[in-house]
Formats: sequence, structure tokens, C-alpha cells
Amino acid sequence: MKRIGVVTSGGDAPGMNAALRAIVRTAHPTGAKIIGFRRGYEGLITNNTVLLDSRSVGGIIHLGGTILHTVRCPEFYTEKGLKKAAENLEKNKIEGLIVIGGNGSFKGAYELSERCRTAIIGIPATIDNDVYGTDETIGFDTAVNTAVTLIDKIRDTAVSHERIFIVEVMGRKRGFLALEVGLTVGAENILVPEIKPNIEKVCEKIKENAEKGKKSNIIIAAEGVGDTRKIAKEIEEKTGGDVRLTVLGHVQRGGHPTARSRLLACLFGEKAVKMLFQGKTKKVVGINGNQLVEIELKDSFTKEKPLNLEFLELAEKLAI
Amino acid sequence: MKRIGVVTSGGDAPGMNAALRAIVRTAHPTGAKIIGFRRGYEGLITNNTVLLDSRSVGGIIHLGGTILHTVRCPEFYTEKGLKKAAENLEKNKIEGLIVIGGNGSFKGAYELSERCRTAIIGIPATIDNDVYGTDETIGFDTAVNTAVTLIDKIRDTAVSHERIFIVEVMGRKRGFLALEVGLTVGAENILVPEIKPNIEKVCEKIKENAEKGKKSNIIIAAEGVGDTRKIAKEIEEKTGGDVRLTVLGHVQRGGHPTARSRLLACLFGEKAVKMLFQGKTKKVVGINGNQLVEIELKDSFTKEKPLNLEFLELAEKLAI
Amino acid sequence: MKRIGVVTSGGDAPGMNAALRAIVRTAHPTGAKIIGFRRGYEGLITNNTVLLDSRSVGGIIHLGGTILHTVRCPEFYTEKGLKKAAENLEKNKIEGLIVIGGNGSFKGAYELSERCRTAIIGIPATIDNDVYGTDETIGFDTAVNTAVTLIDKIRDTAVSHERIFIVEVMGRKRGFLALEVGLTVGAENILVPEIKPNIEKVCEKIKENAEKGKKSNIIIAAEGVGDTRKIAKEIEEKTGGDVRLTVLGHVQRGGHPTARSRLLACLFGEKAVKMLFQGKTKKVVGINGNQLVEIELKDSFTKEKPLNLEFLELAEKLAI
Amino acid sequence: MKRIGVVTSGGDAPGMNAALRAIVRTAHPTGAKIIGFRRGYEGLITNNTVLLDSRSVGGIIHLGGTILHTVRCPEFYTEKGLKKAAENLEKNKIEGLIVIGGNGSFKGAYELSERCRTAIIGIPATIDNDVYGTDETIGFDTAVNTAVTLIDKIRDTAVSHERIFIVEVMGRKRGFLALEVGLTVGAENILVPEIKPNIEKVCEKIKENAEKGKKSNIIIAAEGVGDTRKIAKEIEEKTGGDVRLTVLGHVQRGGHPTARSRLLACLFGEKAVKMLFQGKTKKVVGINGNQLVEIELKDSFTKEKPLNLEFLELAEKLAI
Repeated sequence: MKRIGVVTSGGDAPGMNAALRAIVRTAHPTGAKIIGFRRGYEGLITNNTVLLDSRSVGGIIHLGGTILHTVRCPEFYTEKGLKKAAENLEKNKIEGLIVIGGNGSFKGAYELSERCRTAIIGIPATIDNDVYGTDETIGFDTAVNTAVTLIDKIRDTAVSHERIFIVEVMGRKRGFLALEVGLTVGAENILVPEIKPNIEKVCEKIKENAEKGKKSNIIIAAEGVGDTRKIAKEIEEKTGGDVRLTVLGHVQRGGHPTARSRLLACLFGEKAVKMLFQGKTKKVVGINGNQLVEIELKDSFTKEKPLNLEFLELAEKLAI
Repeated sequence: MKRIGVVTSGGDAPGMNAALRAIVRTAHPTGAKIIGFRRGYEGLITNNTVLLDSRSVGGIIHLGGTILHTVRCPEFYTEKGLKKAAENLEKNKIEGLIVIGGNGSFKGAYELSERCRTAIIGIPATIDNDVYGTDETIGFDTAVNTAVTLIDKIRDTAVSHERIFIVEVMGRKRGFLALEVGLTVGAENILVPEIKPNIEKVCEKIKENAEKGKKSNIIIAAEGVGDTRKIAKEIEEKTGGDVRLTVLGHVQRGGHPTARSRLLACLFGEKAVKMLFQGKTKKVVGINGNQLVEIELKDSFTKEKPLNLEFLELAEKLAI
Repeated sequence: MKRIGVVTSGGDAPGMNAALRAIVRTAHPTGAKIIGFRRGYEGLITNNTVLLDSRSVGGIIHLGGTILHTVRCPEFYTEKGLKKAAENLEKNKIEGLIVIGGNGSFKGAYELSERCRTAIIGIPATIDNDVYGTDETIGFDTAVNTAVTLIDKIRDTAVSHERIFIVEVMGRKRGFLALEVGLTVGAENILVPEIKPNIEKVCEKIKENAEKGKKSNIIIAAEGVGDTRKIAKEIEEKTGGDVRLTVLGHVQRGGHPTARSRLLACLFGEKAVKMLFQGKTKKVVGINGNQLVEIELKDSFTKEKPLNLEFLELAEKLAI
Repeated sequence: MKRIGVVTSGGDAPGMNAALRAIVRTAHPTGAKIIGFRRGYEGLITNNTVLLDSRSVGGIIHLGGTILHTVRCPEFYTEKGLKKAAENLEKNKIEGLIVIGGNGSFKGAYELSERCRTAIIGIPATIDNDVYGTDETIGFDTAVNTAVTLIDKIRDTAVSHERIFIVEVMGRKRGFLALEVGLTVGAENILVPEIKPNIEKVCEKIKENAEKGKKSNIIIAAEGVGDTRKIAKEIEEKTGGDVRLTVLGHVQRGGHPTARSRLLACLFGEKAVKMLFQGKTKKVVGINGNQLVEIELKDSFTKEKPLNLEFLELAEKLAI
């Protein structure tokens, strides 16, 4: 394998740069050239490339975002776009391509893999943690900790006031982030997209808490559960309480990656390069327990990763 | 002066605990007893008190919130409430009362001072920084830094994407927080309540920036400028850009106070006790440059503190 | 099981409070009383107890340290001390005791278990991560991230200067912390107590790096590798470089626990209570991959947990 | 003024990049070219330059370190070095030079100004805060907050143990940093280079505290007070206590600048450019209270800035 391509795609996740560093520095001693495609899949279409050597990935292990950038590129998901990308892989003599991204990117990678001879390996990097087959994705631990740190600040003021705080965290379709955040901040209620929100039940719990002397409540809501402003109003009306809303937004995507997000990036990056040299393709790297695993590329985005509902039960049990 | 009362009132601000510590430990060697009123002005009405000695304010200099708690108490602002509070001051033989809070609390303190013989001194503590006569209030520097740290995270991801980010910071009436945050994060636009927002102008700047190759934009908006969701939609429609909203909310009130918020708390706390012993009343402690000053209690909430518009000009000049 | 005791022992670790909360709130619905022993094993000897109910562990999930305190108690490790502790367990009718701590505490727990009828379960909480049988201990992830965050700051200035930075992290006997920190900050050299430090080799690598244009170097050293001041001097003499030393010290023990440390605390706390109700004793809770496991109490401190040397290789490979 | 030079010199300080941004973007609309000299004064000798435009200082307002780098350059302080630098200023037609640094750099700037026709303005940026004539230097507030945040973590664990913690902060000659850190963390003792340390007195206070029930003590020591290891040992011997040492080291130089350090950088950068256009030279920008001031370049490094000893008294008074 003499020429390896790499692209970061979809929403950025803290640790993408650490993964780039691991890929380049693992591949470097083999003599292979590493070609980065800039601006996500758009770079595959426009042939926007940069040669990456060991020095060019120096001093980036701790940086959020991605030095290769990533933009949305609907064109890629068309037959014309995919062909153009396949041609550019051919033109650049890319024998193996590593795609760092989430479900949407892996779907694109699969479509591309059906149209080119280049071997393709995916590295799961998304704060949503919703890639099938891996316990964790690069960036998830960072996003969880960013949210937890902020909600700790809200707790500071919550104990001084008697208020209900709703914090909207990312997660349009899945509740992995909301669930882990909710459990670890000790939230009184956690709303995830997988379960229709029962505002009545939330309000009852708030009233029960008030009777027990617990006058401040924190509710974690994934963005996918609906309009949090409306939920806030509804709770205000039903409980007579003072409800405040925080929408964390893109704060959760940024920041320096945590040690764990970097560790996954190092392990996944090294593994992906090894897999290319072993002649593998259409796979995604993953971790199960402490074991690195190989996931079928198609499975990664077609199969649904189950939400750990035991965490939800535990959270409810402990937030009494 | 043998018995000094202290109360934290209104919205909490990081550094209130540091101020409590400074008051108690400055007064302690004089032999005076320090009586804390719990839960803001409500505690003055319900006579909810706690004796504070040097040990009881140990280990709190770095804590957000207030160990005395603070809740809203509309009753206090009635004739009946004020009388009840005055009676309780009398009953507890409080010779001097220190009120830690913002404009609303100082208005209440003034009304109370007209109805009792207790000397009253105010210590400005509010993240809004809108108390007339002092350059800075306890908690302001902390709130600014909390917001700045978070917006730095948004920048991380902003450079990888081509997006417009609106960040709503606190400030219903005044733009001190938005202004200092906007200048120090290098925001492309800053919207403050004091100036009617010109969305047309904002959109033009975004387009100009795009032409210059600056494809991501950060807009800081004080909550008082209007519905930020509507503003986001309007900008999206007028620029065709991808606009994302973050509402920082109560995150800004919490967290450990910065060194500067603690320093002000130490200085203000010591000064307030000294002023009581000098027989002063109806004053608010403040800082002008490096000098501690005394502000007329009535001025503190009736006169308007001017916004430093030069900062706005400088921010615009530097965000090119 | 009507009366359950709990004690935090040894060096404190972030997440101990979260574990206390999980224990109390898991046990609460069973009707069992939870008795906390204060100040570590000393409290077992002096019978220094506190009744813990659901409210008394409210608002502590995010606090560093331990609300029960922990002090060194050499007396406990004597025959007389152990007997006294056993008597107090008897006197308090403690049917099950949960010990939150590390290897030293588990050794003490084992000795105690040989002298009393109380069932004893251990929860591993130590920033050293050196308890046999569990992948991770409560507090480890927090300490790693604290160190990583600080070394990121050193990187900021390292790139502007051409210097060699040695950072001493905790770990008198084991290098788990140094290893994970070194890998995730991208350190050029990692020194662990398990491997005799080869300063010659370190200096050679520094010289090689200089030739490659990499003029700043970060060396992570566990405290157990020897006097870091002497190592700094030796490197300075042998390379002619400018060497700066940072000793992180107890900074690594404090701070709010990370989400992962809290998650382990929730899981371990719940599991320990369940095990007591299942009639188990002389066990330590642990995690292998994603599975909670039960470790023999005696094994936990007599068997040596292997250091993941593959991480050391990976770190060297990636820091080129 | 058509060509303006800028150089960052000496130890780096958080906010240097924000100052560079302010200089370039203030000068840009005048049509002047901005030439950056790389690697401190070395760049003036080797003529290592880079043209800085508005885009090249984009996205750096929040970065620690300095994009121009800064290395030690003893050669500059020789007659030969100064002449070479003066020649390069001439060759590059630099009409005005802005030096961002501390006392040592300003001494160099003064020597250079005596040997060239270029106007020279200094911007004080050093975490030591020891430049005469200005209340504060760029980077000081950041270093204070970094230290304070870390010592808060030590407090977490200090309350659980009965220990004495010594934290060595930067400051070889002056105690500004130690003093402000000590006051705002509530340290029991503060040791500054300006006052010979009285270890006897420190030990007495520790014993007094123990009698009052205050069993953990935090001592802040500037590095200039002597060998902190020896001080730790001495205190251990004299009090019989358990003493732990933390040496914060270069952690204090790095990290994102605080809002205040950035604000100073914006104000100082704009002011320095204005002063050049007003034909001024041999001046240093400063702040007194809220007023920007102009300091004689020679005064800035020859006159001694007084330490605010009132802060030391206040710290002692409040740490009872």
C-alpha cells in the first residue's frame, strides 16, 4: 500500500485530529504517502488534497475540530458526485481510504466503496455515539464531560434558588449523550428521543421532590425530544414552578478532547492503518469492552445500536 | 457595633460566599456577632437566622452560589413586608446590615433603611455589572470568563464548518456582559439591549466577511435584544447561511469565582465592615480604577451606569 | 440486611462522594440504615459514625474529596486496632460493610474480615488504578484528565520555546497514570516505575528530535522513577538543553470527578449493595470491558495488575 | 508610517497573540504593512520576518503562546547584536517597532532605541506583572486564575486529609503572582521574595490553626523565596505535620488567556499603534485604574514597581 487517503466527514468531533495524527504516524514508517482530502467529501469531488507527513500532524493531538475541515456536501450523495469521487481516488492512486466520521459518512463511504477499487475503512468519530457495533465513538466522552461540567455550574446556582432547570443537549435521533450526562450529573429527569416524553410524569416527580424538600430540579433533554421551549412552558404551567432553559448547542462539539477520546483516536487510527495493510476493506473499527473489533461497514449505519436502558433506570433510582 | 446582619439577595453571583467570608472574618476580631439571614429578604421577614463565626465561613471562598441561599421575595417589597423586616432587625438588635446583591436588592435595602434605625451598607454582586458608581461588581468577571471559555469551544468547531453561530448571554436590560464577552472572543457582531438591533447590518457584515474568505461568524446577543430564535431565523433567511443558536442560560451564574471576583469580594467585604464601624449608612461599596469608593445607596439603583461604547467600536474594528 | 456500614479510606479519589450517594440511595428503598464511619479506618476504631439518608448525600455527586473524610490510621493495622474495629462493627450491628479505597485499604479490610462476622465488600477508588482484577478504579479517569489538561497548557508555551519539560505525575509504585497521560498528551518520553529509566536513551531521543526539527520535548515521569530534579539535571547536562520541571502533586487528587469516574461510582455503588443483599462477602467490585465483575478481596491487593505495555509502544510509535 | 514591525520577546504570556491581532487590525486600515519578526530578538538579528495581514491573525485571540515564537537570545544584548538588529530595522524600512514582552525585553528595546531611528513602543506582557508604571500586564490575570483553579483542587483533598500543602508559583524576583493567588485561594501563609521568609512564624501559625481545629494548611510560595523542598522539610520537622509540595511550573504560562488578559491585549495593541502614528517613541503602554497611560521606556525596567503589601495584610486577616 503506497498511497493512503484520509478524510474527516460530517459533524466534527473532538479527537478527529488525534486520529489523523495516529494514522499518519502509524503509516509513515511503512513508506506510504498519506493524502488528506480537505473539507470532507467535497474534497473528494473537487480533488482538494494535501500531503500529510509526520510533522504536519505535530501539535494537534489536543485540538478540537479537524485540521482537514469538514463541510456538508449533498452533491457527494448523488450518482454524479460518487463517480467524481471515485475518479479522483483513481487519479490520485489511492489504494486505501480512511473515513473519520459518523453514520451519515459511513453510508456515503459504503456507496463510494461500491463504485471504486479503493479499500475503505471507517473510524467512528461523532459526539452522538450512535454507530452500531462499537461501545464508544471518538468525541463522545468529551461531549459528555463538557455538558457535565456546565451542568455542575447550574447546580451551584440551583441550590441557592428553588428552580427547575431544563438543559437541552445534542442528539436529534438518539439519547446516548443525554442519558450518560443525566446519570452523571444526577438529573431528576432524563428525556431521550427513543421514549415519548411523558411531561405529566415529569411534573409529578417535581411535585413529589418538592414535598421531600428537594426544591430544585434538573431535567436533561436530548434535542430530538421536541421543542424544549414548549416543554419548559408546559412544565411551568403544570407545576407553577420557575423553569429556566439552557441550550448548550455547539459548545458540545468543541473543546480539547478528553484523555479517553484521544486514547480511542490513537487506538482506532493505528488499527485502521493495520487493517488496510492486511488487505481489509468495507470495515469500521470499533471497541467492545477492551477489545478492538471490526464492524461491517454496511452494518455500522443500517443496524441500530441499542440504548442502555439500564442506565436510565439507575439514574432514576439514584436521583431520589 | 455588637451585632451585624448580613443577607445575600436577588440572583446569585459567583463570589458571594467569598464576600461573606471577608465580612465575617473582618468583623470577628472586633468581638461583634454576625447574624446571617437565610434565603434573601425572605429571611428578614421570617426571621430565619444563623450565627456566623470564622469557622462557618471556612472552605467557601471558592464556592459558587451562596451558603445563605437567596430566593425571590415579592412580599418584602410591600409596606407590610418592609415593616416586618424592620421589626426583625430591631428584635435581633442588628446595628448594621450588609446587603450583598444587585440593583433590585439595593432598592429594597433603601426602602428598608427608611423604615429602621439599622445602618445599611450594600455590596454589589451581580453578573450583570449594572450597578451605578462601581466599575465592576462581584461575579461579573466570572460570568464573562465562563461565557468566553464556552465560545472558544464553539470557535473550534466554527473553523471546521462554514456557519453562523448566535450565542445568547445573560442581560435583560443591560449589555455589559455581552459587550465584554463579544470583544474578548473576537465576535463578528455584538447585540446589546441599549441599541436597537439592526439585523440588516448584521447580515451585510456576514456577506462581506464571506467575500473576504471569513466563512464562520459568531454573534453575541444579550437576552434583552429580543427573541434570539427569531433573530436566528431572520439571519438564516437573509443570508442563506446555516445559523446555530446556543443559549448559555444559568451556566453563567455558577462555577467557582475567578480570582478577580474573589479579590473584589475580599476588598468589598472588608470595606463594608469598616464603613459600619465608621458609622456610615445608606452607602454601597464600589471600585473606581484601583480606589475603593462609597456610592449613595439611592444613586446605586436610580442612576444609570453608562455602557462603554468605545468597547463596541473597538470590537468592530478588531473583528475584521 | 438492616444496617450497612460504609467507610472511605486511604488517599482520596474524585468520585468517592458519587459512590457514597449510589450506595445510600440504592440501599434506601430496602429499608436498611446506612451508617457512615468518619475519617477512614480511624472512625471504625473511635466509633465516629453518622447516619446517612438520601438527603444527606444530595448535591455531592460532583464534589471531589469525601464528605466522610479519610485520614491515615496506622493503629488500624495492628491487632489491637483491628479488634477494636471489629467490636465497633458488632456494637453498631453492622451486617455489611462497604470499603471505598485502594490496595492498602483492601488489605486492611481483609484483615478485618478475618476478625468479624460482618460481610465486607470493597469498591476500588484510587487515582493509581493499581487494583488487581478491575480495568479501572474510581478517580483514575479524573486524575488522567487533570494531568492532560495541565500538560496541554505546557504545550502552548513549549511550542514558543525550545525547551525540555519534565512533568512528574503521581504513582509511587505503578505507572498506570503516567502511561495513559503520556500517550494522550503525545509525550516524547514516558518513565514508569516498572521499567528502570534509561536516561541515556531519553537524551538520544531528544537529540534525534532536535535534528528532525522537533525542538521541544515533554517527558512524563511517575514519581516512583526517582528524584525528578536529579533526572532534570542529568538531562540538562547530557543534552545541553534547557530543562523545566513541574510537579503536579495533589492537584491530581482533587477537582470534580469526570463523567466516567462518576459512572463507575454509580455502577460500583449499586453493585456493592446488591452483593451484600446476595449474602456475598470478601469481594471487591470491578469492571472488565463492560461487565461488572466480582474480585476476591485477597486477590485484589496480593496479585499484581499488569501494566499495558502495548500503550507504551504505541506512545513511542506516535510521538515521532 | 508605512512599515511597522512587531516582535514578541522573553517568556511567553497568555494574550500575546491577542495583542498581535489588535496591532495588525488597528494598523491595517491605515494602509501600513506589518512585519512580524520571528523567534523574539533573534529574528531581528537574523532578519527572520513574516508579513502579517488581517487574515493571518484570525482565530488566534484565544491561543496561548505566541504565533511569532520567542526564544532566548543573549547575542542581542551585545553591541554586535544590537547593531545587527538596528541594521535589519533599517533594511526593512521599519519606521515603528512594537515590542511585546517584559522587563528584560524592554531593557533590550531601550538599548536598541539608542542605536536606530525606528520609533519603539513597548506592550507589557508577562505573567510576573512586574513592569513599572502599569497596574497590570497581559497574561497576569490568566496565570493567577490558572494557579487558583489548581489550588482549588488541592483544597478538595485538603479538607479530607490533615495536611500541609506548599504550592510553588512562578516569580523569581517578585511576589505579585504569589500574593494575588494567596489572597484569592485563602492561603494560610504567603511567601514572597520581597520579604525574607520566616519559617518559624509559618510553623507557629500552623500550630495555632491546629488548635483552632483548622488542620489543613495551604502555603503559597513564590519560587524566589528559596528551595521549596527544603522549606517543606523544615516545616515537617518543626510541626510534625505531613507536608506535600506542588511545583506548578510552566503550567502557569500556558492556557487560553482570560477575558481580562485579552481585554488588556486589545486595549494595549490599539493604543501602541495610535502612539506610533502620533510620532511617539521610547514609551511603554500601561493602565492605571481605567486609564491607558504612557510610561517612559527607561522607567519601565529601571524603576521598581511596589508590591501591594496591603493585600498581604488582608490575606492574613482573612485566613483565620
